[in-house]
Amino acid sequence: MDNIVDGSELKIVGTSPVKHDGVDKVTGRAKFGADKHVPGMLIGKILRSPHPHARIKSIDASKALALAGVKAVVTRDDFFELPAPVAQHGNIYTDFRDLMRNCMAREKVLYDGHALAAVAATTAKIAKKALGLIKVEYQVLPHVIDAEDAMLPGAPLLHEKMITEGVDPVPTKPSNVALCEENSMGDVEAGFKQADIIIEREFRTMPVHQGYIEPQACLASMDENGRAELWCSTQGHFAVRAASALMLGMEASKIRVTPSEIGGGFGGKGTSYIEPVALALSRKACAPVKIVLTREEVFRATGPTSGCRTRIKMGATKDGRITAAEADLVYGAGAFRGANLRGAANCMFSAYNLKNARIVAWDVVVNRPKASPYRAPGVPMAVFATEGAVNELADKLGIDRVEMRVINAIHQGNSTIVGLKVGPIGFDEILDKLKNSEHYNAPLKANQGRGISVGFWGNAGGESCASININADGSVTLVEGSVDISGSRMSMSMMVAEELGIDVDKVNSIVGDTSSIGFSMPTVGSRTTFATGMATVRAAREAIRVMCERVAKIWDVSTDEVVWEDGHVKPASSNVGDFEPMSINDIAKIAGRTGGPIAGHSELNAQGPGPGLGAHMADVEVDPETGRVTLLRYTILQDAGRAIHPDSVSGQLQGGATQGVGWALNEEYIYGEDGMLQNPGFLDYRVPVASDMPMIDTIIVEEPNPTHPYGVRGVGETPIIPPQAAVANAVENALGIRINQLPLSPPRILAALEEQKG
Amino acid sequence: MDNIVDGSELKIVGTSPVKHDGVDKVTGRAKFGADKHVPGMLIGKILRSPHPHARIKSIDASKALALAGVKAVVTRDDFFELPAPVAQHGNIYTDFRDLMRNCMAREKVLYDGHALAAVAATTAKIAKKALGLIKVEYQVLPHVIDAEDAMLPGAPLLHEKMITEGVDPVPTKPSNVALCEENSMGDVEAGFKQADIIIEREFRTMPVHQGYIEPQACLASMDENGRAELWCSTQGHFAVRAASALMLGMEASKIRVTPSEIGGGFGGKGTSYIEPVALALSRKACAPVKIVLTREEVFRATGPTSGCRTRIKMGATKDGRITAAEADLVYGAGAFRGANLRGAANCMFSAYNLKNARIVAWDVVVNRPKASPYRAPGVPMAVFATEGAVNELADKLGIDRVEMRVINAIHQGNSTIVGLKVGPIGFDEILDKLKNSEHYNAPLKANQGRGISVGFWGNAGGESCASININADGSVTLVEGSVDISGSRMSMSMMVAEELGIDVDKVNSIVGDTSSIGFSMPTVGSRTTFATGMATVRAAREAIRVMCERVAKIWDVSTDEVVWEDGHVKPASSNVGDFEPMSINDIAKIAGRTGGPIAGHSELNAQGPGPGLGAHMADVEVDPETGRVTLLRYTILQDAGRAIHPDSVSGQLQGGATQGVGWALNEEYIYGEDGMLQNPGFLDYRVPVASDMPMIDTIIVEEPNPTHPYGVRGVGETPIIPPQAAVANAVENALGIRINQLPLSPPRILAALEEQKG
Repeated sequence: MDNIVDGSELKIVGTSPVKHDGVDKVTGRAKFGADKHVPGMLIGKILRSPHPHARIKSIDASKALALAGVKAVVTRDDFFELPAPVAQHGNIYTDFRDLMRNCMAREKVLYDGHALAAVAATTAKIAKKALGLIKVEYQVLPHVIDAEDAMLPGAPLLHEKMITEGVDPVPTKPSNVALCEENSMGDVEAGFKQADIIIEREFRTMPVHQGYIEPQACLASMDENGRAELWCSTQGHFAVRAASALMLGMEASKIRVTPSEIGGGFGGKGTSYIEPVALALSRKACAPVKIVLTREEVFRATGPTSGCRTRIKMGATKDGRITAAEADLVYGAGAFRGANLRGAANCMFSAYNLKNARIVAWDVVVNRPKASPYRAPGVPMAVFATEGAVNELADKLGIDRVEMRVINAIHQGNSTIVGLKVGPIGFDEILDKLKNSEHYNAPLKANQGRGISVGFWGNAGGESCASININADGSVTLVEGSVDISGSRMSMSMMVAEELGIDVDKVNSIVGDTSSIGFSMPTVGSRTTFATGMATVRAAREAIRVMCERVAKIWDVSTDEVVWEDGHVKPASSNVGDFEPMSINDIAKIAGRTGGPIAGHSELNAQGPGPGLGAHMADVEVDPETGRVTLLRYTILQDAGRAIHPDSVSGQLQGGATQGVGWALNEEYIYGEDGMLQNPGFLDYRVPVASDMPMIDTIIVEEPNPTHPYGVRGVGETPIIPPQAAVANAVENALGIRINQLPLSPPRILAALEEQKG
Repeated sequence: MDNIVDGSELKIVGTSPVKHDGVDKVTGRAKFGADKHVPGMLIGKILRSPHPHARIKSIDASKALALAGVKAVVTRDDFFELPAPVAQHGNIYTDFRDLMRNCMAREKVLYDGHALAAVAATTAKIAKKALGLIKVEYQVLPHVIDAEDAMLPGAPLLHEKMITEGVDPVPTKPSNVALCEENSMGDVEAGFKQADIIIEREFRTMPVHQGYIEPQACLASMDENGRAELWCSTQGHFAVRAASALMLGMEASKIRVTPSEIGGGFGGKGTSYIEPVALALSRKACAPVKIVLTREEVFRATGPTSGCRTRIKMGATKDGRITAAEADLVYGAGAFRGANLRGAANCMFSAYNLKNARIVAWDVVVNRPKASPYRAPGVPMAVFATEGAVNELADKLGIDRVEMRVINAIHQGNSTIVGLKVGPIGFDEILDKLKNSEHYNAPLKANQGRGISVGFWGNAGGESCASININADGSVTLVEGSVDISGSRMSMSMMVAEELGIDVDKVNSIVGDTSSIGFSMPTVGSRTTFATGMATVRAAREAIRVMCERVAKIWDVSTDEVVWEDGHVKPASSNVGDFEPMSINDIAKIAGRTGGPIAGHSELNAQGPGPGLGAHMADVEVDPETGRVTLLRYTILQDAGRAIHPDSVSGQLQGGATQGVGWALNEEYIYGEDGMLQNPGFLDYRVPVASDMPMIDTIIVEEPNPTHPYGVRGVGETPIIPPQAAVANAVENALGIRINQLPLSPPRILAALEEQKG
């Protein structure tokens, strides 16, 4: 459907111009969620549960409302209760009513920090004081923090009527297990029989937070006529609109959501926490209301991703061919169902061409904040097990670790466990370059180790919209419907400039608010450069079609007799006539006289994103005295299909790996016996900082994705998948001890060293 | 091209729902030009000439720049000087370089208040103080305020090289006359020979200001990368963008202009005064800059419309048939060429079916602010003469004044002096209803008089863009490219709702900023409901086409086999199959699965606006002691083609008439001998206030304009054309004295009474 561009002729795609938001972010001009101010604005603050699990018997806000400066209090009663389950388009909640209950508790509070009331007041101080005046009567209930515990008989039930789905026969008793999802291919038992060696291991990862630097922030203003404006930091302003409309019982068209610049999201800002609350406060107070979360609130009540317990079994022949693989995964969903089980099925074995495999995954609710997607949702925890097992198999078989991947690598035409037939992919090239890299072959010193790991992410497509308008001076404005997290405005501009044959500086892109452009899915799953990019290219081509029509009209020839070439409309052949080619400038200048302004639009549901494969290699040094792991060197190889803006691609790879390293080495949620989060701050929850990281080398492989006109594959998710296993394998290589549980923090390393000694 | 809607089936068009901005304007929420605040914002102030005419020898801003808190000073040197004339698309300036010189004087200051420098500082107080520290060396020159004086030999020359255009032979000497425009039809001399009666009269009107309540205001922010955001009160944000881009030497796509709600414009906010200045200050200061004009600045340096001296000659036969008409008009253009001469040619005789006519109009520069359009630009001053003459002819011939119009009324198929062939118009119906109205036949008391007058406005079309997006919940968002001055968001929503067969409340419209929608001409000339309305209807029909395609795909039938009816896609006949009709809601809900979001777009240059004709009738009482004229009763009849939102149409008629009454009775610019404006404020420049006006009755006639799918004609300009003559005729009817000069203020009335006595 879309003509594919020949990569050899590219002029703009493949260069790395300064991004639209670059200067603004460097100078501090960029406006994030908290940077919007309007006169008469109130400050909203949220009352949060001091119990991990309790029934709300009553809420009395009368004293808070009586406090001077308090303009509104909202509780569960101020939100629209959907009478039946609603599956929200593109939402992480299976039932939309869960999102409502997570934004504002209804019958129960289900975790430490669960929102149950909110106040709007003239100052933050008054709002905080008012929170203390809201009287809540709780019936405190026993709680359960760990997913494996929550599966045990007799565990406290979060949702008294929840019956496990996906098991046969249907259970008669409620439990904390929301769903069991099983996927399989081939004959796993037969596969294990073919194996010369079988290993069975158990891996564990902890919930970790997306760690975006900018806390959730928004400014909501609803007028007396029921029309609302909302400014917020989000990955998906249309998703925020949908959630807000449903929670407030409004029509979507009445809420205009403008996304701010975003200080990180990583999946954690694809859903709503505060926006419907701010809107409800604004509606009640008849004034604009701003809510900015504190870091503590971010940790207690947003994100994180699920922790996971993975039991894995893999068998291989002597020559390294994996004959069967099997996994059983328990994901903690947090307080509401909907951990990212599909991540395991889609990706955990998909870097390999397996014939026999089975994956069983469990979605378990616990008294923690609702799990939210985090870059390649559900995958890194599963692949930590896969890659740990593959490395161990390779070691046991005496096969080079990279060679082990080469033997089993997935190729074009192979199918994954979920039936995805893989197109052309650059995995062989990645493995070849990895094996022959200077890094892979460099010597190591004492206490140092090297690990490798690979990762597969299916990538996403979906609904996107783009419009381009050609101005009278030949410059171009582009509206994309996707939030720009990491430079998509520039990538879109580049594709438009390439199509139109003009300087990229002439194309200026904006992210349209929800009233200005058609529905576009959130910027998640590495979908934007692919799907919105496809819409952008189609919009540009539509504008080119219009320009060809206009020129044909001017020349009084048929549209078949003109062609678009080198940024000009030209006669298709010398038979057409002796016409001077017309540039965009020529055509745009007289557009008014030839029919009106020239534009191109596209609304689509992009299919065929093409998977993204990557390999990571980490060198570490372990201090046996302190247990501290220092990252010495790190190299990433990944297939980008085609890197529209190579610096941005490298940035995605480096950022993803850095987050994976944090996940591997230090990050974890620590709950006390009382079910309360003990480390809700960056002092106690340690993310990698610049001084923790070496410069990460990136090698971009380009095997074009044939379904995208420029061959684009998403690149943002894959790089967070391999680091956990790569780092763990490097630590193992340094110490000679396999540790199958993250994080590899000093206490755990020291304990392992103790155990080794003992 | 566009299917015409049968008026008998309308459900929404013709009702008057509350407008989008209604509640916000009543509650004070609406954000006007001055209502935007951003942190770190500087205040811009403009230094204005204290001389009506002077050469600028030097500007020294060093002391101003040294003042603490001053962040930038800009003068002529900070703007891009175009090397050659540029005719700006849709602009009131013949040469764009004049706009630049009006925003910021270059070689000379040409009127009291002409901008010649600007300061950005941390506070308004500092900025004002800094203005006083800018040292300007002037060579003061003789000035000329009156256009007739400016035409005299030896008058001071504003532009030393300006040669009159449009006269043959081309003059060898420069003068203040920029242009002579002559239009004629038939044989005027022969026409006068056929006449039984000929009158020759001279009429005069003074420059009057548009009198918008909201002064010009804007907030500009340019980043270090050369991208700018601009918020401003304007009738045409694309025009502001174009002017700013040219003055700053930027590409249009780099400036994103968002129009605020607008507190009146009436033609005066179709051009730029402060926006390029604020942008230049922001560029230099590297900070956002806000400029809000004071009322004094508005009077001294924006607007007004031209004053005009009209010599008119008209002849008629005994039975009332006008045989010839001739006019010579001198328009004062202000400091730069470009009075609205075309207004006279297009409209002054066009209510009548004349065979012989000639109009000669002169565009004369004077030391006053550049004339700006004001509702039906250039027409009311000319029609004041036409209608005065027609009334006098009727009186002299003993023919009823309305009957005189009936005899000469223009009809479908007649041509105007500029060759416009008139389509179906409701003029006969207007005159019939006028003549038979209770008002026309009501008795009058002593010192009371009744006047009538008619007016013709050609209306405008032009370039407009609109996009509609259908949301998953079936609600609809509409983006229009036209600034909404008086309710176009609602009118557009109504047409969309009518097309889609849904409740109007489900359609929410916004005015897109210049980066979000394609080029649309300013909201001027009564073009918006016609042209942007046409784009909106086409966009809606495009969305309907997409919906039909989607349903055809679902039903697996061809698109010919489905029809759009009553807000549903239905099988075109019973042969197609037994399918359940699908509503927008049904289709929207599953749009993702049928190809992606559903939208409709239109970019067009609308032709065939269809003229607007109206008749006004005014009753006045004149106090012979004070000379005060009190308006007692006022009725307006006008052809709206079709009134989409009748309350808005009535509002337009009432507002236009009120402004015309002010023009007739009190408003005028008063200059001293020194060339300085003496009444730059609402205390000394008297516009009608609510207590001056009776409730104005409106009678809307609907003769659909066949080129618009809903039959729309613009309605905003026509109602300011007849009031001057209607009021003057009523005063004449009360006093028995014809006064052919406006305003009919107490001193002039008293002088006339004195003269009558004497």
